[in-house]
Amino acid sequence: MPPAQTLTYSERAARHKNPAAKLLLETIERKNSNLAVSVDVTKREDFLAVVDAVGPLVCLIKTHIDIIEDFDYGLIKRLEELSKKHDFVIFEDRKFADIGNTVALQYSSGVHKIASWSHITNAHPVPGPSIVSGLASVGVPLGRGLLLLAEMSTKGALATGSYTEEAVRMARANSQFVIGFIAQRRMDGVGLVGGDVENEGDFLILTPGVGLEVKGDAMGQQYRTPDEVVRESGCDVIIVGRGIYGTDLKDVDAIRLRAERYRKEGWDAYLKRIRS
Amino acid sequence: MPPAQTLTYSERAARHKNPAAKLLLETIERKNSNLAVSVDVTKREDFLAVVDAVGPLVCLIKTHIDIIEDFDYGLIKRLEELSKKHDFVIFEDRKFADIGNTVALQYSSGVHKIASWSHITNAHPVPGPSIVSGLASVGVPLGRGLLLLAEMSTKGALATGSYTEEAVRMARANSQFVIGFIAQRRMDGVGLVGGDVENEGDFLILTPGVGLEVKGDAMGQQYRTPDEVVRESGCDVIIVGRGIYGTDLKDVDAIRLRAERYRKEGWDAYLKRIRS
Repeated sequence: MPPAQTLTYSERAARHKNPAAKLLLETIERKNSNLAVSVDVTKREDFLAVVDAVGPLVCLIKTHIDIIEDFDYGLIKRLEELSKKHDFVIFEDRKFADIGNTVALQYSSGVHKIASWSHITNAHPVPGPSIVSGLASVGVPLGRGLLLLAEMSTKGALATGSYTEEAVRMARANSQFVIGFIAQRRMDGVGLVGGDVENEGDFLILTPGVGLEVKGDAMGQQYRTPDEVVRESGCDVIIVGRGIYGTDLKDVDAIRLRAERYRKEGWDAYLKRIRS
Repeated sequence: MPPAQTLTYSERAARHKNPAAKLLLETIERKNSNLAVSVDVTKREDFLAVVDAVGPLVCLIKTHIDIIEDFDYGLIKRLEELSKKHDFVIFEDRKFADIGNTVALQYSSGVHKIASWSHITNAHPVPGPSIVSGLASVGVPLGRGLLLLAEMSTKGALATGSYTEEAVRMARANSQFVIGFIAQRRMDGVGLVGGDVENEGDFLILTPGVGLEVKGDAMGQQYRTPDEVVRESGCDVIIVGRGIYGTDLKDVDAIRLRAERYRKEGWDAYLKRIRS
């Protein structure tokens, strides 16, 4: 097939075999939004308020369910209701990073039961292929999708060079379940060795560290614009956090205005990309 | 100072500046046990039963608190009571692997509030130094200690070569909080570059993948004996899971017998090491 970044989201949705990837691509097309909001707040009602505010404008809500202090399973029910009401996909940004047996339990069990509600989750490839098989044993029967962290956008990150190449090879070897990467660029061709035929299927690239104003925080996060990420680097989904929900979580109008600004920037960058 | 593996645990305890490392070294000496048990069960009462069974024989209990389905904070109170009753250190094997801001929240907050009860936790160095500073901002004021995953014992793990070297450099640069490594060997001298003076302080090596009988599981875990790990490779703590608690969690006598066998093997290997 042609390189994924030259196709429309709907063309890619029609071809994709993984249910979670298909759902995400269809949602992006339906809502003209490649914007994901990362809701990194610690109170349940704050979390739901932000999700409800940005829900109409996003394709995906990214969660860190393990930072919510007053979590109970009722919160998941509320999140699922909002997911249906506003038509967005859920991505628990768990960054699994353990051996196969352990991640299978962490994914399916505990108080959070991530596999039962999160369409997409992610993992570091550092433990080797057992992490993918462990998660797949839980996620594939549920139609879930996995993203691998092939790179990180923080200063001094160790996911570079041969590490990134191995991550991409691991994804290619498990493309029924691994639907893409958390990365700053497309991974087509990365890690191919002499004689390999590139047959990528379609890996989605979800990109954190996107900002319109700020260039970095005190804890090593670095930022790029939606145009740099989507048009120049060919990524598929921009992930924005505090840049959208800010510090006043009650100011729904301001949150929606900022989300709409990012949605439009991300979508315009995509339109420029597929027309070029 | 002389290489850590030539000193007794009590000599090292007397020199160590980190409160969690000091506590662990003192506990090992007091109990003549360098055995840690990893309690990877999903029911609260099973968890407490295993901890109570092995508690007298271990220096440390390793937890995956996020796999316990019927967790509530009362479980932590029970764990802390057992920690006092049986005199063991607690290590939540969380394998943090996100950017600084996020891990600070994951460590301090959520339903699990790991920093408030776990003397020791661990992290992957893959995001770069911000993960250590983020965790340190929470853990240092509480007297906690951090282990870095410099290596992993699974097949095809990507924590090798320059990745391992960078992990060790990151630990040296943060030795107030980073007390050691999850690894299969000592890390002294790893990652030193020309002109560096080796001034290691004392990094503890905690080693998973220890077994007396089994050599591997279906999900990529590989096993070594206590003698290989402690005497040959100079590691400090052996971590054993199902090899001790097995499949019948009610059979306290059998669990204690297996724990005592591992405790003795680990301690004998240590005595041989320091006498050689």
